[in-house]
Amino acid sequence: MAHENFSFRKTHECSGGRARCGILTTPHGKIHTPNFVFCGTKGAMKSISTADLRATDAEVMLSNTYHMMLQPGADMVVKNGGLHKMLGWEMPMLTDSGGFQIFSLGHGGVANEIKGRRNFSHHCKRTLLEITEEGASFRSYIDGTKHMLTPEISVQVQRKLGADLILAFDECTPFHSSRDYTARAMERSHRWELRSLDEFAKCNDGSQALYGIVQGGIYEDLRKESANFVSQNDFFGQAIGGSLGGTKEQMHEIVAMVSKFVDCSRPTHLLGIGGIGDIWNGVKNGIDTFDCVHPTRLARHGGALCVPFLNTGGEFININNASFRGDISPIDDNCDCYCCRNFSKSYIHHLFKAREMLGGQLLTVHNVRFMVRLMATIRRSIENETFIDEYRKWTALNFKNCQN
Amino acid sequence: MAHENFSFRKTHECSGGRARCGILTTPHGKIHTPNFVFCGTKGAMKSISTADLRATDAEVMLSNTYHMMLQPGADMVVKNGGLHKMLGWEMPMLTDSGGFQIFSLGHGGVANEIKGRRNFSHHCKRTLLEITEEGASFRSYIDGTKHMLTPEISVQVQRKLGADLILAFDECTPFHSSRDYTARAMERSHRWELRSLDEFAKCNDGSQALYGIVQGGIYEDLRKESANFVSQNDFFGQAIGGSLGGTKEQMHEIVAMVSKFVDCSRPTHLLGIGGIGDIWNGVKNGIDTFDCVHPTRLARHGGALCVPFLNTGGEFININNASFRGDISPIDDNCDCYCCRNFSKSYIHHLFKAREMLGGQLLTVHNVRFMVRLMATIRRSIENETFIDEYRKWTALNFKNCQN
Repeated sequence: MAHENFSFRKTHECSGGRARCGILTTPHGKIHTPNFVFCGTKGAMKSISTADLRATDAEVMLSNTYHMMLQPGADMVVKNGGLHKMLGWEMPMLTDSGGFQIFSLGHGGVANEIKGRRNFSHHCKRTLLEITEEGASFRSYIDGTKHMLTPEISVQVQRKLGADLILAFDECTPFHSSRDYTARAMERSHRWELRSLDEFAKCNDGSQALYGIVQGGIYEDLRKESANFVSQNDFFGQAIGGSLGGTKEQMHEIVAMVSKFVDCSRPTHLLGIGGIGDIWNGVKNGIDTFDCVHPTRLARHGGALCVPFLNTGGEFININNASFRGDISPIDDNCDCYCCRNFSKSYIHHLFKAREMLGGQLLTVHNVRFMVRLMATIRRSIENETFIDEYRKWTALNFKNCQN
Repeated sequence: MAHENFSFRKTHECSGGRARCGILTTPHGKIHTPNFVFCGTKGAMKSISTADLRATDAEVMLSNTYHMMLQPGADMVVKNGGLHKMLGWEMPMLTDSGGFQIFSLGHGGVANEIKGRRNFSHHCKRTLLEITEEGASFRSYIDGTKHMLTPEISVQVQRKLGADLILAFDECTPFHSSRDYTARAMERSHRWELRSLDEFAKCNDGSQALYGIVQGGIYEDLRKESANFVSQNDFFGQAIGGSLGGTKEQMHEIVAMVSKFVDCSRPTHLLGIGGIGDIWNGVKNGIDTFDCVHPTRLARHGGALCVPFLNTGGEFININNASFRGDISPIDDNCDCYCCRNFSKSYIHHLFKAREMLGGQLLTVHNVRFMVRLMATIRRSIENETFIDEYRKWTALNFKNCQN
């Protein structure tokens, strides 16, 4: 058995839907699903310590293989005793394969396309050199040195990093790719995923579990083929990667479409999605885990996540707004985070006006705790069979937007 | 009695010296002296929350009147319930009079001169408009609006901010001032301090205590005159302000000289000094409290405070140094801070290389805790009558430097 120290047990399934609760057990503890994976891209969450992350009841974080292999390098992480020890995070952890960043940074701004943002810019420097059957070569964004990532190297690097959940190496095709290119890239990704499995089997010591990646872009037949491929191979779980279309609505449709094809006895991760409505939509379609830099990036720019139906209808407020200058109420009266229990909107507005780092730090604490509470709310609604009502309440704004 | 809710009680005095331990009691708790006042310049410590500050056992912090009156404004602090409530810091707090920043920012870089730094630059924008008997007018560094600070306004603003310990309004003369100018400025400062006392008496509700400021620059007769002036008036304590010379050695000499003249039954604060050797020297001369942005500013640039005689002889190490890339030991084996208990030099070096905010946050925690432990070490050495031995051990490097 390839993943003997890991298990995924469904604890509740929505009657008449695909939303489910589960417990994903890893050597570093349990992840209660649905759950959110917080991004420690370069081996650190931006502006929050792992102790403060743990204090929010967050259960799992990730680091990016691409960034860590370039700086400080996988061997330096080994010298530090692995990611868990180096980061002071003794809870479950995930690393990606490095593929997304190679292709995203390499094409210049493709991340925006994959996530359906229309007005992306192409100012990113193109660092992807060549994609061959062997793998992908690219230049370091730090010092320009040439690097190669293959399925074997990706698994070896992730082995050194030591996260519990690791991802097979794939090519992440952007939205503008033709059907033909998407199909060929998917087929190559499948061959890369088989090589990832082989490399994983060679050195598997029971401390890690490997996820396959479902590719196929926006094409239903390709997504079905890719999901079947992943299901037929001995992956512990599956991540949904690649392009999810050009708009939020298309993204929701594609998630609904792909998730029908995946093996629902395994945990399913949706890569790079973190909007509140998007998460409710994903859970409705059987997604178990999500990751996105959105909550923490938003915080550093003054965005505080809030409950859409209790506020002005949006998923966040911008604390830089002059209307908060004299507002001495907390960001969220119902939030139990350190920020909301101790500080006023007025104070945090001041911190942003004064360009004090503490402003972003406090909003990060709030946004992380918000996501943790959101996922707990979602799980409770599944257990209580109130998921569909809650889903409608939380996504009413999205529906309204879709109708316009 | 002007300061009935405040007291300063000496608990131990060094035999044969002026170093002493004391307890400075305020309505928000006790400060064990000698102690260090951490700088929350704009109503926030840079990169550390007040909860984490408290967790280091820090007992007192300050905010700057000049910055707070310009942004968010004293009335906005009142609306937030005062500085203590706004910042979530229910421990003792100090505000300065605003004078230092007016004159420091106004002259352009005078802070460097006052602190004896030789290679200061004059690139700061000059914002001081005019000094009259009434007070000082200046332009806001934020929006260019014209403001006036007088002794009365400074006390009124500090009343609104609500710190426990507040400072009389004075003119802070730089090192390059002539003896004649320094004398005239000192005399005007004395008149301003009397007006500060009058204004303080008018609205004193027992929640604040007023410190006088000893001016007089580098001139012994002026310092004596100024110390006598402060002693003869009903201030709770005294702060030593103004120029302390052009070099560290001269600063130590002037602190030794001035401190002989002050009323040693009152608490004495040395403004803007925070080097390790400088603090030992100050305590030796009877200084009870210090403040400086040095420990936190140093941290954000990668400087980790360390015990000089246990390291390479300096007061800090620069974690950016390539020699720390693979050093998996903590910053300080003997330090009990969150940073040293959990993270390696190698990891923090990585965070600085990767420009992760968390690097500065972790070093800030270390440097703050280092200062708290340093002050506890100093107090213990006074109580144990080992102060002179410890002083020699901790300042050996400074002596060596003086001899070169």
